[in-house]
Amino acid sequence: MPTVTVSLNERTYPIYVEADALHHLSDLLPKLGQEIMVVTNETVAQWYLKPLMRQLSGRTVVTTILKDGEQYKTLASFEQIMDQLIQHRLSRSATIIALGGGVIGDIAGFAAACYQRGIQFIQVPTTLLAQVDASVGGKTAVNHPHGKNMIGAFHQPQAVITDINTLDTLPQREFSAGLAEVMKHALIADPIFFDWLINNQQRILKRDKPTLGYMIQRCCEIKARIVAQDEHESSLRATLNFGHTIGHAIETNMGYGELLHGEAVSIGLCLALQLSVQELGLAAEIYSKTTDWLQKANLPISIPLQCKSVEIIEAIQQDKKKVGSQLRFVLLKQLGQAIISDEISPAQLLALIEV
Amino acid sequence: MPTVTVSLNERTYPIYVEADALHHLSDLLPKLGQEIMVVTNETVAQWYLKPLMRQLSGRTVVTTILKDGEQYKTLASFEQIMDQLIQHRLSRSATIIALGGGVIGDIAGFAAACYQRGIQFIQVPTTLLAQVDASVGGKTAVNHPHGKNMIGAFHQPQAVITDINTLDTLPQREFSAGLAEVMKHALIADPIFFDWLINNQQRILKRDKPTLGYMIQRCCEIKARIVAQDEHESSLRATLNFGHTIGHAIETNMGYGELLHGEAVSIGLCLALQLSVQELGLAAEIYSKTTDWLQKANLPISIPLQCKSVEIIEAIQQDKKKVGSQLRFVLLKQLGQAIISDEISPAQLLALIEV
Repeated sequence: MPTVTVSLNERTYPIYVEADALHHLSDLLPKLGQEIMVVTNETVAQWYLKPLMRQLSGRTVVTTILKDGEQYKTLASFEQIMDQLIQHRLSRSATIIALGGGVIGDIAGFAAACYQRGIQFIQVPTTLLAQVDASVGGKTAVNHPHGKNMIGAFHQPQAVITDINTLDTLPQREFSAGLAEVMKHALIADPIFFDWLINNQQRILKRDKPTLGYMIQRCCEIKARIVAQDEHESSLRATLNFGHTIGHAIETNMGYGELLHGEAVSIGLCLALQLSVQELGLAAEIYSKTTDWLQKANLPISIPLQCKSVEIIEAIQQDKKKVGSQLRFVLLKQLGQAIISDEISPAQLLALIEV
Repeated sequence: MPTVTVSLNERTYPIYVEADALHHLSDLLPKLGQEIMVVTNETVAQWYLKPLMRQLSGRTVVTTILKDGEQYKTLASFEQIMDQLIQHRLSRSATIIALGGGVIGDIAGFAAACYQRGIQFIQVPTTLLAQVDASVGGKTAVNHPHGKNMIGAFHQPQAVITDINTLDTLPQREFSAGLAEVMKHALIADPIFFDWLINNQQRILKRDKPTLGYMIQRCCEIKARIVAQDEHESSLRATLNFGHTIGHAIETNMGYGELLHGEAVSIGLCLALQLSVQELGLAAEIYSKTTDWLQKANLPISIPLQCKSVEIIEAIQQDKKKVGSQLRFVLLKQLGQAIISDEISPAQLLALIEV
């Protein structure tokens, strides 16, 4: 089975990428313990909870089913999981399995990080966004009403089981949202992959399985290499936030649940590329090819009319990537080469947004 | 200044133990950053918030003052700190200073572990219990209504500033509670220190400063050595839970705030010593000398009448030190030598408690 390794010394773990991986989960995880908590949401449970439960037969399994959506990525959901873990007396040797998209992975991972000061967890990502990005690298968190991912932990999973077949049931809008993160990986790290994305968009949008398999694996490889070099985001890992500073601000401003995370990132990518062209002389065709690709994927490329520019700037100043009073941005020096800039002023950004 | 080092590779940090250390905090922490959140409680703030603020002049300081008591060691208090951090827009380079006892250190440390996935923190313990035990070793947590410290993280401080003079204002009952943890350190690790405690009890109870200084430093040295060998409690560190299995169960059963943590530990020590005499042939005089010493310190040595034995056993089965269905206990093979036993049955324990 195609496997990507995230190399982090004693925290090293495999990502298995294959059609039907969910149906081989117990073979892939021979050391899985006796006590399991499955965290999922109402939508994903309909499709994939039964096959997962079949893989876990003979074990003690407790299930927490959350409501579906970023607006439920809260301390309240975290507390709901804690209540279940404690009510069912799961021990420190229990394992949490996150079955779902990025929201489920983030909440379940944070619960695993904190229950009895840390238990094991397994990611089973079922959305494209989670498969190419959120399930890899050990970032876990919940949102605060005034800021995304403000409360969280670094907590690596023991394994990631990526079953490409789960994308069969993914709504078109969610699939597109994942493509924004795919494009981000290409932009910051891999010009060859960028060209491949441009040339294979038809096959991608038709969800051709071998094409998706390659695309997901390549994204995992890119992210795994970055995370292995900088697990706790002292420097290099911050380049993965390309497009996310503005993206997060838009999400916070509109309220969680209005735009999908990937849709907000799509807008953020376009604005960050514009800034890169203006400030660092990035070739304009990178910007035009990217916006064209994102639009063909049905993704938004400019800030929604209902967003107030000044509030967006304020939200960015509140964003956790801020250092002191500077606005911190990831920009592209050239295709595949991201840098971190502290030189963008609020006024510059305002001019860009208000166009 | 007397300094104990907790050796944990890149997370190594110093514990400064001295009368008046609080008034030299800015000298002791030359690298302290510009953004500070002080977490304390109403009682401690009256005495020590002003001197601390003088040490922090010229910096951005936000203060969160919680109510005093174990019953406030909750997710709600944690959320209150998060709200303040976000409202005041503190960045990832901010530092949390915990000014207070074990409760404050545990909540503030957990907040530091989770805010933006981890920021720095400094312990300024002001109770004997926190100075000899809770402030050392990086365990942070809040309680769940059904279990103590069930939600938390391992997050080491950058430094511990222990000002012995803060014990001047500590109520007698709280001072005594700290002595239970002092006795625990001697029992599990240091026969010479045990004899010293027996021989110096008068001076200790009179709070003679040089005597307290030596006693606190010795406890920190014992704990630092254990934590350095087993930071995440895979094995050896569990011996620090001597007396705590029953202690936690009593606390949970009575409701937080009825008994002080140290008082519950005092009872737990006596019962764990009884079990050690019965099961491992520990010399009975260790038991009698210890109970005598704890009683002279005004500490309880048997389970309060209002506790129901069966509920205590149930609470122990729920305790996080449980492995599978066994009851896990730390016992003494001999003075200074603790072992972890999975061989105590619920029936044996019930017989002991119901005497």
